[in-house]
Amino acid sequence: MDFQTEFKPITVQPQLIEGKSFDMINEEIGEHPFTEEQYPVVQRIIHASADFELGKSVVFHPDAVRAGVYAIRKGRKIVADVQMIQGGINKPRIEKFGGSVHVYISDPDVMEEAKRLDTTRAIISMRKAVREIEGGIYAIGNAPTALLELIRLIKEGEAKPDLVVGMPVGFVSAAESKEELAKLDIPFITNIGRKGGSPVTVAAINALSIMAEQV
Amino acid sequence: MDFQTEFKPITVQPQLIEGKSFDMINEEIGEHPFTEEQYPVVQRIIHASADFELGKSVVFHPDAVRAGVYAIRKGRKIVADVQMIQGGINKPRIEKFGGSVHVYISDPDVMEEAKRLDTTRAIISMRKAVREIEGGIYAIGNAPTALLELIRLIKEGEAKPDLVVGMPVGFVSAAESKEELAKLDIPFITNIGRKGGSPVTVAAINALSIMAEQV
Repeated sequence: MDFQTEFKPITVQPQLIEGKSFDMINEEIGEHPFTEEQYPVVQRIIHASADFELGKSVVFHPDAVRAGVYAIRKGRKIVADVQMIQGGINKPRIEKFGGSVHVYISDPDVMEEAKRLDTTRAIISMRKAVREIEGGIYAIGNAPTALLELIRLIKEGEAKPDLVVGMPVGFVSAAESKEELAKLDIPFITNIGRKGGSPVTVAAINALSIMAEQV
Repeated sequence: MDFQTEFKPITVQPQLIEGKSFDMINEEIGEHPFTEEQYPVVQRIIHASADFELGKSVVFHPDAVRAGVYAIRKGRKIVADVQMIQGGINKPRIEKFGGSVHVYISDPDVMEEAKRLDTTRAIISMRKAVREIEGGIYAIGNAPTALLELIRLIKEGEAKPDLVVGMPVGFVSAAESKEELAKLDIPFITNIGRKGGSPVTVAAINALSIMAEQV
């Protein structure tokens, strides 16, 4: 029996699936506040979440998209709060420009320090990232405490990220951490409310890296 | 300057954050159709997504939770459709029972075969999983084509999973694939609609593995 010929609907080809999804998003999104430059990021966030409410809750600093695309083209390092984000980011596109993705949350020194201070590994991992990396793109999709710590480090003048994509999900401090990020006058992409997460954070980074490839 | 003492709100401790989130979910969820046995799975899905609508869209086969807990305790293998799920599953808890998590989507033979047949790697990875593993728990959070292929293999009698957690997200075939899963009389956990994804699929598996630990 030949499964191959029997089971092959038209939407099986990966490119067709993505194109069809994007058409559906364009048809269904209705009115939205996003510029032409911002829209591809939102589109990919909706694609990753199937959630228009989440997509429409995205907020951009006016410089965010240009700063992000520029930083990727310059091969600036990307710091992720958790491995799931590192796993989801399209590495060949980042590496093409000399970039790389870094996660510190499972480093032995970070784990030890967090235990010693009775705090989250996420917080300590941000402190380490700021020590290790100059500038950089921060992709925080999981830990509100990571985002709050990064905001503190920015306010203290210790961190000067090229872009912060901050979309942690959750009930405790997630919405609040994003509100704090949106008050900063630095390039950021965030969203309003409790929703968010690794896949939408990854989607934003991947959208920017696709834009970085286009001239 | 001592950052540690200055910046340490009460909710910084990981266990406290989770406990507080679960209390908030219990307070806000309102009426729901889930049994006592199913509720911890739904609770963790809401925790991972901050989305009550998604949580309440979860559908269980009546045997699903018991079958899943039993399979984890027996150390049955877990097959994930994508690396992000493998990354998110709490491995020490699975390994304690002798289990392990497997992803085939980036295997060279899977990639070659998908190219040759002009189909998705997800489909081919399911065919490989069924050849390699007897029974097993399938955790599909990304690729509707993987879930549709697994359903076909189950119907053909070629796959006999211990449990299928099928919660792919997306616009093309995601909702349809989950409807098909819900028609099967095998242990499954799925949800209605387009929403879903890796984090909620991971949440379901982790909830079951926590239950497996409890006597």
